[in-house]
Amino acid sequence: MTLHITNEVNATLNSLIEGGNYNAVMTLVDENTRRLVLPLLPCLSSTHVIEIAPGDDNKNLGSITHVWQEMEKCGATRNSLLINLGGGAVTDLGGFAAATFKRGISFFNVPTTLLGAVDAAVGGKTGINFNGLKNEIGAFAPAKAVIVSTTFFSTLPEQELKSGFAEMLKHAMLHSHQQFAMLLDFDFKSIDYDLLLKMLQESLQVKQRIVEQDPTEQGLRKALNFGHTVGHAFESKALGDGHPVPHGYAVAWGMVVECVLSHIILKFPSTNLYSLARFVKDNYGAFYITCDHYDQLIHLMRHDKKSHNGEINCTLLKDCGSPVINNTINEDDLKAALDIYRDLMEI
Amino acid sequence: MTLHITNEVNATLNSLIEGGNYNAVMTLVDENTRRLVLPLLPCLSSTHVIEIAPGDDNKNLGSITHVWQEMEKCGATRNSLLINLGGGAVTDLGGFAAATFKRGISFFNVPTTLLGAVDAAVGGKTGINFNGLKNEIGAFAPAKAVIVSTTFFSTLPEQELKSGFAEMLKHAMLHSHQQFAMLLDFDFKSIDYDLLLKMLQESLQVKQRIVEQDPTEQGLRKALNFGHTVGHAFESKALGDGHPVPHGYAVAWGMVVECVLSHIILKFPSTNLYSLARFVKDNYGAFYITCDHYDQLIHLMRHDKKSHNGEINCTLLKDCGSPVINNTINEDDLKAALDIYRDLMEI
Repeated sequence: MTLHITNEVNATLNSLIEGGNYNAVMTLVDENTRRLVLPLLPCLSSTHVIEIAPGDDNKNLGSITHVWQEMEKCGATRNSLLINLGGGAVTDLGGFAAATFKRGISFFNVPTTLLGAVDAAVGGKTGINFNGLKNEIGAFAPAKAVIVSTTFFSTLPEQELKSGFAEMLKHAMLHSHQQFAMLLDFDFKSIDYDLLLKMLQESLQVKQRIVEQDPTEQGLRKALNFGHTVGHAFESKALGDGHPVPHGYAVAWGMVVECVLSHIILKFPSTNLYSLARFVKDNYGAFYITCDHYDQLIHLMRHDKKSHNGEINCTLLKDCGSPVINNTINEDDLKAALDIYRDLMEI
Repeated sequence: MTLHITNEVNATLNSLIEGGNYNAVMTLVDENTRRLVLPLLPCLSSTHVIEIAPGDDNKNLGSITHVWQEMEKCGATRNSLLINLGGGAVTDLGGFAAATFKRGISFFNVPTTLLGAVDAAVGGKTGINFNGLKNEIGAFAPAKAVIVSTTFFSTLPEQELKSGFAEMLKHAMLHSHQQFAMLLDFDFKSIDYDLLLKMLQESLQVKQRIVEQDPTEQGLRKALNFGHTVGHAFESKALGDGHPVPHGYAVAWGMVVECVLSHIILKFPSTNLYSLARFVKDNYGAFYITCDHYDQLIHLMRHDKKSHNGEINCTLLKDCGSPVINNTINEDDLKAALDIYRDLMEI
């Protein structure tokens, strides 16, 4: 996988396509990226455009069947290329379609959202939702190239940017105190897109180094689950209550709880915990819970995809840059951490 | 992947299952193997049995969706196991279902036919038919273990045994003159199943060594396509004419034509060619063609999955044990080879 961090997307894509000598080039879009992004990339105008309906709800078997059929119609062979132009739903589904067409053809990811760039485009996790479960059917298959740019981000709602930024915060905390501190200084009120591109590059390098060492999540890659055990429980509770929250927001709140756990169990420095909690509260608000919700949240964590034999499994931090995977969390520590989270968030 | 060549299938399976500490074990069967083979393996009686309709026609999206749903119902996680008990259709589909469930869980293959053992169970090619095309959607994913036995073969029709034997002949010719000569001595009229198991072991070792060096068929693995460019054309013509022939038979006839090409282009020794042609004619009969069929066959070969830019691509042999991949064949040589094939087959 080659990672291209650039705002010259059209020129980069053009040279990658020409250098590849592909016998068919296809571009996967959803309705939004066909309308808003495709016209900005003239080098894709001569490719076969395949469109799916937008959103995570359409990341399903019906859509991928359509993509496979369209690839057939284009006469795609093992020497063809699929370019996925969109957010996480497009890159997840398109990556899986390419990984399984004739047992695997090349694909590029061109993420058009910050969350898509940080969370989905790099790392080789592809897949679709099935039977109401997220990413239930899929494969580990790296893109041949990922072209990341902030060009497409300026029209995104602030909520989407912040959602992606939470995953960048996670990478920073896994990497170093310096990177963490740099992100905490970021100003959402007057966004510097050049600075964002530079920070995004560092963030993706952190992820890529981890993924290369453990592509199929046998060990080290679980570090990337930091914030996600509690985060997923918040996300599922919110969905169940009929008030869904953006994925990155849930991760941000989850990281606060898991930093408290890190402090309790691994002596994670309290100064870092306070800095994170303040940044999250100021930029993401708080996820409202009372002690009456603890049992429901614990139940959700015991049934998480990462859980084994019903134990609650978290990646924690000794400090910024020192993750420890596979911590089994007991209920007392978790309840104490949720209490402290509520104090920090002032709820 | 561990390969177990043994007639103690139940004991071997039992020890592999117990050693794996799986939280759910599922067995995939078709109607035939549920009825005829499952009762011979008491260690599988406590597993969740998932059944699909038999035959290559049912190796499709509908069947795999059913398998995924049943795996959900069993509460399968990444730490679960699927055991594929059947012929090539079961191991191909089951392997793909396992490779894509939660991005990949472990699976064993227990082939119940000789063709399934030689052609499908080892090598990591999994997949389903789609849009009328064979194995169009799939993945490269090795089984965690393959248990090969001749126990289940004694009730198979002779045609099925011979079909599998043709793929063994191919492996022998790729490996050595000695292995080739040993197979030519095999007597189908009074089958020695212990000898067959020994030959099968050598045959699978040849395949495994090739696959390990090139799992995704970038180069060396194409050697395994020997006999298949012409063989697939025969198979497709027969299917189109409404008189389908077994896969292995088509490969046997295809190997004769490709040995003639090997002789013309790479000086493959004529004595080996005559030995092969006689064995094939005696055991498989001949695939009937006249010179009026040449253009149709050439068209089919130009549109083969292995073809690139419409060129006819064959693996040929300098001698037994010396394959040469990626030979581009011109029409004159091909027509000459088909002429000689007809002479050798006396048609």
